[in-house]
Amino acid sequence: MMMLLRDLARNVGTAHAQVVPITVFVAVLCLCLVVGHLLEENRWMNESITAILIGLLSGAIILVLSKGKSSHILRFNEELFFIYLLPPIIFNAGFQVKKKQFFQNFFTIMLFGVVGVFISTFIITVGSWWIFPRLNFIGLTARDYLAVGTIFSSTDTVCTLQVLHQDETPLLYSIVFGEGVVNDATSVVLFNAVQKLDVTRLDGKNALHIVGDFLYLFTASTGLGVIAGLLTSFCLKTLCFGRHSSVREIALMVLMAYLSYMLAELLELSGILTVFFCGILMSHYAWHNVTESSRITTRHVFAMMSFVAETFIFLYVGMDALDIEKWKMTKLSFGTLIGIYSTLLMLILVGRAAFVFPLSAFSNYINRRADRTSTITLKHQVVIWWAGLMRGAVSIALAFKQFTYSGVTTDPVSATMITNTIIVVLFSTLVFGFLTKPLIHWLLPHSAANGQQPREGKMPKEDMTVPLLSLEESAATNLLRAKDSLSMLIERPVHTIHSYWRKFDDAYMRPIFGGPSHISSAC
Amino acid sequence: MMMLLRDLARNVGTAHAQVVPITVFVAVLCLCLVVGHLLEENRWMNESITAILIGLLSGAIILVLSKGKSSHILRFNEELFFIYLLPPIIFNAGFQVKKKQFFQNFFTIMLFGVVGVFISTFIITVGSWWIFPRLNFIGLTARDYLAVGTIFSSTDTVCTLQVLHQDETPLLYSIVFGEGVVNDATSVVLFNAVQKLDVTRLDGKNALHIVGDFLYLFTASTGLGVIAGLLTSFCLKTLCFGRHSSVREIALMVLMAYLSYMLAELLELSGILTVFFCGILMSHYAWHNVTESSRITTRHVFAMMSFVAETFIFLYVGMDALDIEKWKMTKLSFGTLIGIYSTLLMLILVGRAAFVFPLSAFSNYINRRADRTSTITLKHQVVIWWAGLMRGAVSIALAFKQFTYSGVTTDPVSATMITNTIIVVLFSTLVFGFLTKPLIHWLLPHSAANGQQPREGKMPKEDMTVPLLSLEESAATNLLRAKDSLSMLIERPVHTIHSYWRKFDDAYMRPIFGGPSHISSAC
Repeated sequence: MMMLLRDLARNVGTAHAQVVPITVFVAVLCLCLVVGHLLEENRWMNESITAILIGLLSGAIILVLSKGKSSHILRFNEELFFIYLLPPIIFNAGFQVKKKQFFQNFFTIMLFGVVGVFISTFIITVGSWWIFPRLNFIGLTARDYLAVGTIFSSTDTVCTLQVLHQDETPLLYSIVFGEGVVNDATSVVLFNAVQKLDVTRLDGKNALHIVGDFLYLFTASTGLGVIAGLLTSFCLKTLCFGRHSSVREIALMVLMAYLSYMLAELLELSGILTVFFCGILMSHYAWHNVTESSRITTRHVFAMMSFVAETFIFLYVGMDALDIEKWKMTKLSFGTLIGIYSTLLMLILVGRAAFVFPLSAFSNYINRRADRTSTITLKHQVVIWWAGLMRGAVSIALAFKQFTYSGVTTDPVSATMITNTIIVVLFSTLVFGFLTKPLIHWLLPHSAANGQQPREGKMPKEDMTVPLLSLEESAATNLLRAKDSLSMLIERPVHTIHSYWRKFDDAYMRPIFGGPSHISSAC
Repeated sequence: MMMLLRDLARNVGTAHAQVVPITVFVAVLCLCLVVGHLLEENRWMNESITAILIGLLSGAIILVLSKGKSSHILRFNEELFFIYLLPPIIFNAGFQVKKKQFFQNFFTIMLFGVVGVFISTFIITVGSWWIFPRLNFIGLTARDYLAVGTIFSSTDTVCTLQVLHQDETPLLYSIVFGEGVVNDATSVVLFNAVQKLDVTRLDGKNALHIVGDFLYLFTASTGLGVIAGLLTSFCLKTLCFGRHSSVREIALMVLMAYLSYMLAELLELSGILTVFFCGILMSHYAWHNVTESSRITTRHVFAMMSFVAETFIFLYVGMDALDIEKWKMTKLSFGTLIGIYSTLLMLILVGRAAFVFPLSAFSNYINRRADRTSTITLKHQVVIWWAGLMRGAVSIALAFKQFTYSGVTTDPVSATMITNTIIVVLFSTLVFGFLTKPLIHWLLPHSAANGQQPREGKMPKEDMTVPLLSLEESAATNLLRAKDSLSMLIERPVHTIHSYWRKFDDAYMRPIFGGPSHISSAC
């Protein structure tokens, strides 16, 4: 035993550079899992908070052990994040999303997720542009200010989703979840659009250019994801992989999803959007073409990978908060720093309020003729507003992309922006996150009863129970239906489009790409 | 569309260094999966051959596209192999091994896997030491020759296992599978022992030192794996993770397995042995403590990761075979190269024959009083001999570790040794692998009928059907049993130890660490 310990002590100093940090990080991840599980029923904690606190603790221990030299073991590399950690998180979101509700509330989700980000970015950019110089914090370029706007417009809704219950408040859950995903994608796409922008001439034409770029990125990325998903489904359906081994089926789904993401990145599209839609398509078609055990496996594996990636990121944020070098590099007074943090937090609060309440009213106006379940009440609006206040992984990654070179900051301004981002993420996750459960319990007392872990249930199950459309209906019924549909289309456009899509899907798409109505296939 | 293609063409040149190779590699992996599936029923092909051929093809295409500059996309890094690719392969082997048969044939497997590697290493080292200088290939040090011995003693039995059927020839299957795993571990451990050796004085004392080092590594590594496995099982059993989410259970199993491997590497033990025993313990205890869906998921996920890692390695071998730079660096004549390859292949054939046939005879002598099913017939001996002729991933990785510095060769001798290894791996996998199915069909015609894909069945299922031991037997029966056992112990030591272990396991281990007899636990 002593011999082992001596070896360990010696190797920590001399072994391969990669082995030590990976070992420590995996050990801390295991600890996080166990502690997270033990605190599952605690009403103040959630996974993100647990991971951040454990990260802070580990950072402190490493800081002491290394005698104040460094607090983190792995140097954060935004490539690590964008190449390995983000794809599983987003793919899983697409794979587990309740498609029916997502598409029924598509219009509202898009309002919040796309238009909302534009509004929020605008307010944060203009606000910081106006306030930062007054706090004696200068040195940011126009592009930096635009980047700051997008960085602090991406939300992290994990915490809220743990409290909301999708069976009790389906509309709210679907909007918060849907917005969270679309919001991530929009911020990244917008961030990339800003990168390409010619900031020397910021006029109306250029603003239009951003919108145009954004639309192109959005359409092309979605298209690529749909193609990848359909291709995988087609392969799995025609080639009947399950006949020989379910291992190949699972591997093909994982690899094709990843391929779609990487291909999108290569084409400078939004990998996030691509892999999100690839996930939706895969759970809609491909998932039905594989063996029963592959279905169970894929569902859990994607959830597991996403969970580990998220925990990893929050752990890192916790560790990085104690990075002495960055703090030393910041040459601002304590008062100025506090001013900057307060400004950013205030702008986040205002920026989000500025679109949630007006857009909710707009959405309610559009849906005024529909049944009452589509109306977003004021309490719901407050929950939606609050749900998007947390800032998370995407903010950090974008900040590193904008203000570091491969994770290393070289000037005081960039170092300040990185520490700013980390402080805002820490504060919003810890403080806002802490208050989320009590707030929701207070606002929506009926959903407080069993608000535990809705994650498990997010399987693409609803498809199994959809009544099959009979294709041999009489012409008369069809005519009658058409008339009904037409008047419906005027009143509730989204619902009607959705129901037409289902017919098309059942008649043409499912026979080719697979689905529950064709279980007895040729395999 | 044209715009996309233009973007693609531009980005392949300029994008982040990591994105392009990963994208290409993932795409080729997908292709491999599909082609491998289509060729599943072909009697000449197997997964390794398919992957190597596709690798060669991709290498050729890249060579043409890059105008003769390079044939591979990722530079091989033995750290990539030892840190990311090997652990899942070995863990899966341990997780899916039929423990009952493995331990019943433990003695024979250890004979082949440990003693056999020593004999084979000795013959290959001495043989190449004697022959290489006569072929005008000089420049290898004593340590290099010892390394060559271990490099070419590690086998790859994937191909044979695809043809053997574990229900028809259980003994043969268990020996070939068990030897494959133990052999991998032994070669790596021996390789590391050789690295530490003081080669200036190669005498009896030093040889004893290797054996001592080997025994220490073997015991310590196994112990670490057992501790990690038991700790995980205990955690899963006491904390009842499944109550909240099966995601955490799966993540904990994956992370703890990986942690055990990395910890072993950090302690300069054999990660392979550690993770192998961790896998055995996890499938024996931990697997029973998780929810039903986690069981299905873990089984398939480990198999999937192992499959992808193996395919990745063979693909790489195919691509690397066309690495122009290494070929140019080799300054030997064509005749000499052919001589070296023939020597190595000949030594592999002889080195394996030198231990398979004598050790089989020895094993038969030890088991002479046991029932006839434990006897290894001559036909079986030929199959075992043949099964271990293929050289694979571990050989490549060890060769890179010995003869390159982070994947880059600097002198002609090292470059020659790398190309030698690749050619031997290619030749043995392609030619010997090609002949395996026909040979086994000819030698064991009864097992030819349905020799398809035994992989699927390798789940730790047998535990479920083990009759429970009644703990309330009468004293008389116990006495009778004890007498029987004693005479058994003399005749068939391994079987008796195994049956005592089962009693101990059921009485003390399973109640603490979990197992099928305690399904109705507290969770």
